Amino acid sequence: MAYAALDNSTVLDYLRTVTALEAILPRDADLSAREVGDGNLNQVFIVQSRSADGTFNGSVVLKQALPYLRVAGESWPLTRERMRFETQALMKHNELAPGLAPQIYHFDNEMSLVVMEDLSALEVMRRPLVARKRFPRFADDISTFLARTLFFTSDLYLTGLEKKELQATFINPHLCKIQEDFVFTNPFMESAENHWNPLIDDEVQAVRRDTELKLAIAELKEGYMTRGQALLHSDLHTGSIMADAEQTRVIDPEFAFYGPMGFDIGAVLENLVLNYLSHFAHTPDGAVRREYQEYLLSLVREIWLQFARKFDELWANNNRGELAPPKYWDFAGGEAAFTEFRRLYIARLLQDTAGYGGCKYLRRMMGIVNVWDINSIADPEQRAIPERYAVHIGRRWVLERTRVTTIDDLIAIVREEAPA
Amino acid sequence: MAYAALDNSTVLDYLRTVTALEAILPRDADLSAREVGDGNLNQVFIVQSRSADGTFNGSVVLKQALPYLRVAGESWPLTRERMRFETQALMKHNELAPGLAPQIYHFDNEMSLVVMEDLSALEVMRRPLVARKRFPRFADDISTFLARTLFFTSDLYLTGLEKKELQATFINPHLCKIQEDFVFTNPFMESAENHWNPLIDDEVQAVRRDTELKLAIAELKEGYMTRGQALLHSDLHTGSIMADAEQTRVIDPEFAFYGPMGFDIGAVLENLVLNYLSHFAHTPDGAVRREYQEYLLSLVREIWLQFARKFDELWANNNRGELAPPKYWDFAGGEAAFTEFRRLYIARLLQDTAGYGGCKYLRRMMGIVNVWDINSIADPEQRAIPERYAVHIGRRWVLERTRVTTIDDLIAIVREEAPA
Repeated sequence: MAYAALDNSTVLDYLRTVTALEAILPRDADLSAREVGDGNLNQVFIVQSRSADGTFNGSVVLKQALPYLRVAGESWPLTRERMRFETQALMKHNELAPGLAPQIYHFDNEMSLVVMEDLSALEVMRRPLVARKRFPRFADDISTFLARTLFFTSDLYLTGLEKKELQATFINPHLCKIQEDFVFTNPFMESAENHWNPLIDDEVQAVRRDTELKLAIAELKEGYMTRGQALLHSDLHTGSIMADAEQTRVIDPEFAFYGPMGFDIGAVLENLVLNYLSHFAHTPDGAVRREYQEYLLSLVREIWLQFARKFDELWANNNRGELAPPKYWDFAGGEAAFTEFRRLYIARLLQDTAGYGGCKYLRRMMGIVNVWDINSIADPEQRAIPERYAVHIGRRWVLERTRVTTIDDLIAIVREEAPA
Repeated sequence: MAYAALDNSTVLDYLRTVTALEAILPRDADLSAREVGDGNLNQVFIVQSRSADGTFNGSVVLKQALPYLRVAGESWPLTRERMRFETQALMKHNELAPGLAPQIYHFDNEMSLVVMEDLSALEVMRRPLVARKRFPRFADDISTFLARTLFFTSDLYLTGLEKKELQATFINPHLCKIQEDFVFTNPFMESAENHWNPLIDDEVQAVRRDTELKLAIAELKEGYMTRGQALLHSDLHTGSIMADAEQTRVIDPEFAFYGPMGFDIGAVLENLVLNYLSHFAHTPDGAVRREYQEYLLSLVREIWLQFARKFDELWANNNRGELAPPKYWDFAGGEAAFTEFRRLYIARLLQDTAGYGGCKYLRRMMGIVNVWDINSIADPEQRAIPERYAVHIGRRWVLERTRVTTIDDLIAIVREEAPA
């Protein structure tokens, strides 16, 4: 079928042609669709099957790529090929981290669409985090997701041939360009699409002429553009994670490509800290605020520590890749040397996490895409408080990244700049 | 035509079918072929056209991939696809560094062969360097080759899209695996194909159990496997360079892929130093030896300095890539910041050059492929002298790489370990 953007009506016509979906979406009954997308690149339909008496029979999500960047309008054309990258990544995530990504039912490359598990029962995390909701599974689940998807797609586990073959299927230049421009470059120079709170204009202008910071950001961008360590999600903010008390699912991996692992880890931690900062406005009661902010920092700490432990264990027990195989460590003291190699590698991951997380705080405050946690603070004066904190923390995570040795170093910067 | 390995007779039958070559290789006269390959992966024929009276009409080189690694025999099967990588790389090198790579006349993917300019008038550099020949064009030419092929294929010049498209055509896992295994891993552990002079067995065994060194080598290998900075030649030793007093040509880029730039630069410098070391045996006359050794160190120095200057000028004058575009540096002090960014980038290239060059000294002393400059020293006692020096210098280039700030730091290590 030739590409056409679906609507609430044509999406039903389309689904009726896909016989493979009948078991999941019985259609002897009524099908109904509603568009619920709040992303920038796609439309998302929830399609339900109900009997005439209203009995719910089943549902799916259909996600279709639009041929332009939604937030920028039709003037920003984008390849629809990204739906292939998203589907490939979702299938890989299901394989490597079962239960932590939505199941895939159907993919149509021509129509740039994928049909997957309906996760409506879960919430996208950003809003409930503003409402001070807790997610008891989150630290364990997201650290598992990170450890497994990054380790099993890297040279630590795959042979050189396997890794390069997988990497070849994830050369994703158009979506990489969005992150390259909008995370690392445009926010830090004059660019028409940037927007920021006029009350923090001094901070924003200071960042844009801060030589030391801009050298560091350019160096980090070089790593993003060249270091193919593992298959990244590459947009792993709390708007790409759905959860409830029992479950976690990582969605929307259309930016997936081979890049530096710290970019994904940094995105998770930075978004939790941005939420922490937003509560200076959202939660005026100091005691209530401090308690939730401590919870968020405990998540940051737990996620890193659990990630580091799981990643190290996966590597110690599955050193199947060709980077430094068991025989390379087969000498007196070799076991300790291998342990030290893993420790050094993970220590560098933490430094990359600081650097990439740091860039992302800054871009959220002064680039094209702000973050709902903070943007939803109506009063500009109130909003400026977390925004200033975010700029200060981002700057320090970037500049101090090579001196960071533990997750507590990063948390200390948050506490110093924005005391709960 | 289905693949068949050619011989001195069938190569002529083949060439007679290629009408496009008639202008270069007139065949109303006699064609004759001889196989001259000394590589490990291919056979190489020089084919000449002569009239009945012996008049020379023209000649070409035909290079054909064998389906196995020649040095290891038929037990090491290899994809013949490498001839596509070699041809693509030669065409790219001709485009970016005109006159510094052989011209391509004909490529046959099915037959895994390429027909190119006959460079028999030039010499592969390794042997004349042992004979203390000088190459007055070499420092200028090879530094131009390095600066132009690396800069123009990097994110410093290409857009993200252009770079990733080019990178996608150079995913070369089979030949990468050879370098990954034989440069970074197998020499440093027990592996049947390793060989070394029994007289330096103590040094070799010490390297294989040197934790600090093996951690550093594994880290460098991680960079080789993940850092797609530029299109590398990836086997740029003095056996891959042909030259005379007026000309230089870089040949044999079948290992080409996107990797860290320092690997190519390090290969050139390390091979010149290995040749320097070989003269402790080849040139017993101290005065003669010292004079030539000084010449070689002056080449090392000149090549780096000219490379650094040319690379910096190319970047300053063609900042067309998306890593850090002109507008990113458009602020008070931005011009100085861009200059500093280039300085830092090139400073890191020197450190990578030290690290990768260092690994390659070591692998040549204790791996599968030794180096003719030193291997041609018949007396094992005499040979052990440069071999020990090479191990000591390689170890220090690797371990001291992060403290290196000028090329003189690397030359000082050579002088300290192996005084002329």
